[in-house]
Amino acid sequence: MSEKKVLIIGGVAGGASCAARLRRLDESAEIQLIDRGPHVSFANCGLPYFIGGLIPAEQDLPLADARLFRERFGIRVRTGTEAVAIDRAARTVTLRDVSTGAESQETYDALVLSPGASPIRPPWPKLDGVFTLRTIPDSVAIKEWIATKKPRKAVVIGGGFIGLEMADNLVHLGLGVTVVEMLDQVMPPLDPEMAAYVEAHLEASGVKTALGDGVARLESADNGELVVRTASGQEHRAGLVVLAIGVKPETRLAEEAGLELGARGIKVDEQMRTSDPHIWAVGDAVEVREAVLGGRVVVPLAGPANRQGRVAADSICGRASRFRGIQGTAICGVFGLQVASTGLSEKALVRAGIEGFEKVYLHPNQHAGYYPGAKPMHLKLLFEKATGRILGAQGVGLDGVDRRIDLIAMAIQMYGTVADLAEAELCYAPQFGGAKDPVNLAGMIATNVVQGDHPLAHWNVPPKGEVILDVREKHEFEAGHVAGAVNIPLGQLRSRIDELRGWGEILVYCQAGQRGYIATRILLQHGIPARNISGGWAMPNAWGRAA
Amino acid sequence: MSEKKVLIIGGVAGGASCAARLRRLDESAEIQLIDRGPHVSFANCGLPYFIGGLIPAEQDLPLADARLFRERFGIRVRTGTEAVAIDRAARTVTLRDVSTGAESQETYDALVLSPGASPIRPPWPKLDGVFTLRTIPDSVAIKEWIATKKPRKAVVIGGGFIGLEMADNLVHLGLGVTVVEMLDQVMPPLDPEMAAYVEAHLEASGVKTALGDGVARLESADNGELVVRTASGQEHRAGLVVLAIGVKPETRLAEEAGLELGARGIKVDEQMRTSDPHIWAVGDAVEVREAVLGGRVVVPLAGPANRQGRVAADSICGRASRFRGIQGTAICGVFGLQVASTGLSEKALVRAGIEGFEKVYLHPNQHAGYYPGAKPMHLKLLFEKATGRILGAQGVGLDGVDRRIDLIAMAIQMYGTVADLAEAELCYAPQFGGAKDPVNLAGMIATNVVQGDHPLAHWNVPPKGEVILDVREKHEFEAGHVAGAVNIPLGQLRSRIDELRGWGEILVYCQAGQRGYIATRILLQHGIPARNISGGWAMPNAWGRAA
Repeated sequence: MSEKKVLIIGGVAGGASCAARLRRLDESAEIQLIDRGPHVSFANCGLPYFIGGLIPAEQDLPLADARLFRERFGIRVRTGTEAVAIDRAARTVTLRDVSTGAESQETYDALVLSPGASPIRPPWPKLDGVFTLRTIPDSVAIKEWIATKKPRKAVVIGGGFIGLEMADNLVHLGLGVTVVEMLDQVMPPLDPEMAAYVEAHLEASGVKTALGDGVARLESADNGELVVRTASGQEHRAGLVVLAIGVKPETRLAEEAGLELGARGIKVDEQMRTSDPHIWAVGDAVEVREAVLGGRVVVPLAGPANRQGRVAADSICGRASRFRGIQGTAICGVFGLQVASTGLSEKALVRAGIEGFEKVYLHPNQHAGYYPGAKPMHLKLLFEKATGRILGAQGVGLDGVDRRIDLIAMAIQMYGTVADLAEAELCYAPQFGGAKDPVNLAGMIATNVVQGDHPLAHWNVPPKGEVILDVREKHEFEAGHVAGAVNIPLGQLRSRIDELRGWGEILVYCQAGQRGYIATRILLQHGIPARNISGGWAMPNAWGRAA
Repeated sequence: MSEKKVLIIGGVAGGASCAARLRRLDESAEIQLIDRGPHVSFANCGLPYFIGGLIPAEQDLPLADARLFRERFGIRVRTGTEAVAIDRAARTVTLRDVSTGAESQETYDALVLSPGASPIRPPWPKLDGVFTLRTIPDSVAIKEWIATKKPRKAVVIGGGFIGLEMADNLVHLGLGVTVVEMLDQVMPPLDPEMAAYVEAHLEASGVKTALGDGVARLESADNGELVVRTASGQEHRAGLVVLAIGVKPETRLAEEAGLELGARGIKVDEQMRTSDPHIWAVGDAVEVREAVLGGRVVVPLAGPANRQGRVAADSICGRASRFRGIQGTAICGVFGLQVASTGLSEKALVRAGIEGFEKVYLHPNQHAGYYPGAKPMHLKLLFEKATGRILGAQGVGLDGVDRRIDLIAMAIQMYGTVADLAEAELCYAPQFGGAKDPVNLAGMIATNVVQGDHPLAHWNVPPKGEVILDVREKHEFEAGHVAGAVNIPLGQLRSRIDELRGWGEILVYCQAGQRGYIATRILLQHGIPARNISGGWAMPNAWGRAA
């Protein structure tokens, strides 16, 4: 037993996990868990639902209290205590009591930094009624503002996870909500054509969205209302503004101590050790390996923070655990819609200069269509075209998206290919899936692409004069179709195939993609070059579809 | 293009998938899909719910009609047509029209056998009101019997998937149901301690179960009731008896043609080719590789049958696809309870003579406990103790079991270890999971076991005089505990540790396992040998728990 002394600065996910794991590995260590806020180990993921009332009371939020840490783990919890400086040579940390300002020194053998991230706040004037949301006190303040000021309208600035969860919960409380987002889409981890499903659902749920329009100014009107003026000159008035434009890593303490920083956050190795061998760092402020392509990323997610905390504890105890990286699996519930992604988006692949990837879209039901309650979901799967290696996936739907994105996340973690998805043997009964699960279908479609049997086209690449063939039934065609498309229903294709000869490559589509695939196979085998437009007419960006 | 002629005998999952895939690969082949029944490509998984009325009408059951096969795929469907003999030398099949008895010959270049399996029916007298369930006509007959005879009680013989789905649906129709099962547990793919949760749920749902009691005789009483007499001498009376004791592969045609059979079904290679190079076989009658340990199994499941059909089609077209085997992933809904498993059970491992495996039990919620609607599930994870390789998993719970067993199924497919489960990065928001998902927790517990940090004991191994330590709070202890156990709540353990010295190994338990793990770590680090009883007092087979 080592009797080492470990200080952990920051008591939320990564820090608290590290502390508990340390104790289980080393009964003799002295462990202090230090946080400047009033709480440790709280679940900030629950805060939007606490504001919305789904989680009724503050005491329903999970809080590991200091007594439990002391009794169960023999860990000293020091809340209201801020670490203001590290003397690496002397191995001491200067702590400041937040209420009294009194400072003290604390020595360490090992120091763990888990400082987290803080909400980004542009240099706007501080106005009453404008809130960020990161801590329990933040959420209590928003709740009190709503209870006392009874605002009828709110503007949420930022259309990411927290912004949309807030929009959902504010509507649940009866407020009219406008979401203002600088990007031209909500949910930045998704590609825009997948985010379009979310945007349509927001509109259908009564939320106004102002996309592609940054905030220029935030003001108070004479009547006490807040006024959000956008770059395009629009003005949105509300009694409450929630600022949810992201977080920035809290790297100040590490930087002032001279620890190496990367372009994005505190630099650590696979054992979560910083450039100082006595200091580890975990959580939202740390730059780690992006697990798919191997770049460096900072991802503020609770699950990876917990894993990092355990790895740091192992490392402090001399164990060779390593953190494998972050693949960015995330989910958000928006008015009953599940929005989830894992791995890299198409945007991220393009940004990273990756070539040779392909994508497929599909719209399967979450379970057998003949069983009551079947609901479609929209899936996008990204993969290496030459090898089939899975690079990322996105899903949007009312049910079962969590399960399918989780499965693909596991396959990515194991360096799986689309063939592995096609071959996956999954739970099937009519109320739980399909004999071909959505994940199987995605894998089968993509495997056909990798094997060269299923050449694809995509709606985001405009046609260059190709014949566009709609193989749906006549009544489907008449309800809406690509301008100039030829309609030959699949059942007539073999008998009318000669009509399609001599026109060069044919771009085929149907409603969702399956009939288009069969048609493409027929055309190719008859010597007619053809590609199937992935996802079919059900895609939001079909040519001629956009308003 | 080959212009080969392919006959497919049996038009349900494997045969239909094979036919459709064949056409997509070979536009010129002549393809006939032959079935002795009135339908092809129907979903027999839906039949219990058709009987129960959840699927209201016969036309709601999915049926790929002959017209669709002809128009979309150019495939000739011949229902009501039985294959009665194969002449392998001449490459012909003798077909018989089921209604007229007329026979004809059909030549083939490639023959695919997808004969399926038929319900096992012991040599009991044929009595009205006794049914098996495999086909749409079977289900129509049961529905008509219920509608006309209005039975008040039913006996379901067999407590497997179909038996319990039938029990569920018959109760839904208002019948009183007794399930008679020869084994001493329901749900044979599960181990008995996991099946116990299902048995308790059946009782709570009003179903009587008679386990460990085979049927001796089936009789008609004078009043027209059916009488099921069991080996133990019990008698169960009912107006309806459903026989669901399993299926047997339909190997007669293959056997008479001189194709090699294994101990369990038709022998095939990885390309689904039989001992005759012109004949392939797929589906419930075929013996395939068990994917975890590599034995030979016959598993009647729709998903693998579909995959086999595709592999056979590829092989017929000269492609080198292979069927990777079956790992036995399955799920069943029983009165709202999800019961699922993948890989091998403990029973199966013992039967196969496998040593060196370990198991962990846990009872996590499907999502964050503080979010409304959290429900516990029961998980069992089996793995190699030396390497952590995952061997199997079982889950029972009201929600989210499908997702977790699917994830573990994917990890097994990829030859993953419990550390891979611990490290998995999964969808988390409070309504969708936990920052540590149940799958992460299972992996973390098992990884601690593999690394030697967490020695386990189990309720199915009786104690040999060890001190049994209950580390729950006093009020939990007083509500029920192992006879003779010592109660030291976890929070007092460090200060009372000397009370436990000198007694030899201590067996520790708590409610679900987590506090027991922490206590075990404390004891071990203080030099006191200890093991934690996995799953804790929440297990149905805790000592002194059983009535």
